[in-house]
Amino acid sequence: MASPRKTILITGAAGYIGSHIALCCLLSGKFSVVTIDNFHNSYPTALKRVTKIAQDALPADASDDDKKALEIEVYRGDISIKSDIEKIFDEYKSKGGIWGVIHVAALKSVGESGEIPIKYYENNITATINLLDVMERNQVYNIVYSSSATVYGAPPECPISESSPLQPESCYGRTKFMSELILKDVCDSAPEKWRAISLRYFNPAGAHPSGQIGEDPRGRPGNLLPLLSQMAVGKFPEGLKVFGNDYTTVDGTCVRDYIHIMDLAQGHVDALAALPRDDIYAAQGKASGFGASGGKYKAYNLGKGEGMSVLQMVAAMEKASGHKYKTEVVGRRTGDVPELVANPALAEKELGFKATRGLEEMCRDLWKWQSQNPKGYEGQE
Amino acid sequence: MASPRKTILITGAAGYIGSHIALCCLLSGKFSVVTIDNFHNSYPTALKRVTKIAQDALPADASDDDKKALEIEVYRGDISIKSDIEKIFDEYKSKGGIWGVIHVAALKSVGESGEIPIKYYENNITATINLLDVMERNQVYNIVYSSSATVYGAPPECPISESSPLQPESCYGRTKFMSELILKDVCDSAPEKWRAISLRYFNPAGAHPSGQIGEDPRGRPGNLLPLLSQMAVGKFPEGLKVFGNDYTTVDGTCVRDYIHIMDLAQGHVDALAALPRDDIYAAQGKASGFGASGGKYKAYNLGKGEGMSVLQMVAAMEKASGHKYKTEVVGRRTGDVPELVANPALAEKELGFKATRGLEEMCRDLWKWQSQNPKGYEGQE
Repeated sequence: MASPRKTILITGAAGYIGSHIALCCLLSGKFSVVTIDNFHNSYPTALKRVTKIAQDALPADASDDDKKALEIEVYRGDISIKSDIEKIFDEYKSKGGIWGVIHVAALKSVGESGEIPIKYYENNITATINLLDVMERNQVYNIVYSSSATVYGAPPECPISESSPLQPESCYGRTKFMSELILKDVCDSAPEKWRAISLRYFNPAGAHPSGQIGEDPRGRPGNLLPLLSQMAVGKFPEGLKVFGNDYTTVDGTCVRDYIHIMDLAQGHVDALAALPRDDIYAAQGKASGFGASGGKYKAYNLGKGEGMSVLQMVAAMEKASGHKYKTEVVGRRTGDVPELVANPALAEKELGFKATRGLEEMCRDLWKWQSQNPKGYEGQE
Repeated sequence: MASPRKTILITGAAGYIGSHIALCCLLSGKFSVVTIDNFHNSYPTALKRVTKIAQDALPADASDDDKKALEIEVYRGDISIKSDIEKIFDEYKSKGGIWGVIHVAALKSVGESGEIPIKYYENNITATINLLDVMERNQVYNIVYSSSATVYGAPPECPISESSPLQPESCYGRTKFMSELILKDVCDSAPEKWRAISLRYFNPAGAHPSGQIGEDPRGRPGNLLPLLSQMAVGKFPEGLKVFGNDYTTVDGTCVRDYIHIMDLAQGHVDALAALPRDDIYAAQGKASGFGASGGKYKAYNLGKGEGMSVLQMVAAMEKASGHKYKTEVVGRRTGDVPELVANPALAEKELGFKATRGLEEMCRDLWKWQSQNPKGYEGQE
């Protein structure tokens, strides 16, 4: 008999990133998943499909128990309301408890964060503090946190290593930065209990190769790849605005580090596996861009370590989708930096993490999702 | 007839700093005071005495209305619970509304903050976010915030100006730093509405000269002056530990900037008066240690601009109290920096703020409070 799965609470598992993380947790054979989601920017359908994909991957002779272990318990609720979190931990006390948390839920638009900062701080900071408080009261001390490369702002070095200074330039980035600071303080306060790993995402893109789950942002996508894939199914016929082509990059357009969502999601399973190890925290302070300290806190970049320009991504999506994009070069956008590329060496060395999937695969999988689900999850079971 | 008083919500007005601010607001003739306080480290008696002092200062022919305007409406509640704040704003809608907030309430022990960080983040950050959210919903956009010189950490220059880098070295300092960041983001999001001034306190000490209100920390005082004044009434007979006398300072002991609590409190009235002015925000970004931005946010040091060593303070308190202190020099304490002194020029120039009371007055007033109230507010009406 297989060893029992540990229960992981994933906040926001129905979202784009959360659903792929949930899937990788289930596929690992080591974890079962419970989630709290307010479905603000996500759909319950995604969670059903995650379970379906995981069940389809079982051997033909899998037991009903094996299948049932892949179901995701869903709490519709809001982590900015503490009692919504307490309910879950209370109920799981009698079900063997929760082993750890992957805290993904957050508002995530850089632009919007500058317009409604209080909402961002409430959803991204109050919520994190609530979660940590309830965890502590329930003696659950393992957490993997969804941070972001935005904590670096415009970094002095590229590729960016984790010890770069943290100087976020947006309200969104500050919510991620502050959450990291809070996690670090909590870990420092009780090194014998708390363990936290922050994963600083670069640009997640693509979808599970089944095309069953993927990114479905409400409204006009703020990120390049979902915008391109939606254009390829006929939305936004006005075409793509390219913000500046006079940067000192390969073709003058901005360069980012796109990482396949399945690689990124796998990084969370790697992080869960690493949490109990003591060796990774030995040099945590400086390595995470903070001062030295004795707590079990560590931050890792999750990126591919390769930069792709806007025009390179357009070309790759043209190849994958067959759609011919209309582009228009306009002026630079305030706050954009020319190049943001991860140095992923630390995650590879300490977590055994490696983004193996390439650009072509990313665009192919994204296109499979988008072409199979031109309207996203809308109206789908 | 005098112009009507504007209503100010002071969070934590029953505390040491809050009670003196409330008094200065009332004495100004311009403001009436309502407060929310959880009495975690404070006493209702303080608020009654504030009203009494203010009423005693009225001319003999003052009307009952004039006296009544000096009463403080008290809500026993917790700003980390949003509904506790909502209740006040709801009730004040029919009483002419709240004009502005002075947000003082916070946990404030540097040492304790490292031990129970979640409590500190909940009380100092979640609470701030709650307050801002309720203010916004009620179209109250004026706020003066109690920040701290701890946001500077160990500063590269001394005296410290507001444009020094913000690099807090304790969890407590980080809660103040983050609150400032949040306030700045909120101001930047709506310059036509929000106005915020953060006041970075150096070392407040002393008491109102009546000796009726003063500092009454629960447990052993963490700060030098209340410790010395309590020793002078017979507490802590083991004497004072001096942490290091080999610093490069006037006598080898640590130097701090002690500011009379009545000067500090008056700074808040000055800040309330300055909030509506547009000129002070013109150069806010760099001047507050942040990047440039267009919001109406500004931070000011509240300090005397003079450094006093531990031994100088002991000598001054000996003179004021007549008590002969027993001191013992022990090793340096981790995290202590040799010298922290404010450059108060910006507050003087832009707010018209000036700490006029000297060291002798500070120790005299402190001793008056302590000798009249050897057990603090305990058991007193």
